[in-house]
Amino acid sequence: MYQKEKEISSEQLFDGVVVKLFRDEVELENGTKAVREVIKHPGGVCVAALDENNELFMVEQFRYPFSTALTEVPAGKLEYGEDPEECGRRELKEEVGATADSFEYLGCLYPTVAYDTEIIHMFLARGLHFGEQHLDEGEYLDVKKIPLKEAFRMVMENKLPDAKTQLAVVKAYFRIYGEAL
Amino acid sequence: MYQKEKEISSEQLFDGVVVKLFRDEVELENGTKAVREVIKHPGGVCVAALDENNELFMVEQFRYPFSTALTEVPAGKLEYGEDPEECGRRELKEEVGATADSFEYLGCLYPTVAYDTEIIHMFLARGLHFGEQHLDEGEYLDVKKIPLKEAFRMVMENKLPDAKTQLAVVKAYFRIYGEAL
Repeated sequence: MYQKEKEISSEQLFDGVVVKLFRDEVELENGTKAVREVIKHPGGVCVAALDENNELFMVEQFRYPFSTALTEVPAGKLEYGEDPEECGRRELKEEVGATADSFEYLGCLYPTVAYDTEIIHMFLARGLHFGEQHLDEGEYLDVKKIPLKEAFRMVMENKLPDAKTQLAVVKAYFRIYGEAL
Repeated sequence: MYQKEKEISSEQLFDGVVVKLFRDEVELENGTKAVREVIKHPGGVCVAALDENNELFMVEQFRYPFSTALTEVPAGKLEYGEDPEECGRRELKEEVGATADSFEYLGCLYPTVAYDTEIIHMFLARGLHFGEQHLDEGEYLDVKKIPLKEAFRMVMENKLPDAKTQLAVVKAYFRIYGEAL
């Protein structure tokens, strides 16, 4: 039987720009105590944005932890207390330069359940209108379009490793083509 | 255009049981410098294990970062240098008490591309034989079985938030039922 855990104490070990690291002491239901290292993260949002031909907007950017550029759906970090849809619309505007008539919720993912509170919300954006990209300072990325069917094939062939991108593509694919399957 | 980044220096800020945190200084192609906070992680493996009726073995365990129990596919952390299949077979034995005749690679996911080097490899295990569960000390979890079709529906209905579980279920589903779609 799994054991619920209750926080007894929490100590912040590091307060970085991205990473806020805590060491919490917890008590299990059976009375034993344990230590949990936890990254506390405000969460994020990603957007599968489709044009009228069901082509998906992707961004390619260098990801330092993997020493390579990755192709991902547009995404960003939530401000504390920010509405996820608002955040998704902001990131789509900043990274792709687009606004959307419709924004549908596709569900969420917990990327790293053992030691990180991050939750990423996924949206499907359609009815796009284009303006200018407004990247944050120090943010460099390339926008490209991939047909949704091709992106789905890439997920199945292990060619898009980013977790949020794989799930946003799969969920958008089923939202668009699910009836036909 | 995205900018490649080169490590200039790396400083370990925290060396925990689970979390190894570094602050690296990097140089971009355009000569600017930046700081990257990075969790360095050995990676992990998860296993979609199916019985002869295409029922999937899941484990339910308390996940402290979310203050709740989550239903996940069996999974564990790689030892440094360990072969992913070997790790998957070990975790399946420990958590479910099963060995498998076949172990097929389903691809990988990068859960947290902005600040964590973790990669999770996914496998499909079939031809199961059962012995005893051998949990690590302090590990508490409940094993349950869910039909693969039902697990796939739960992913689509946002009822299985763990990222590796969602992707392992989707990929196993397509491996098993893809031809029929």
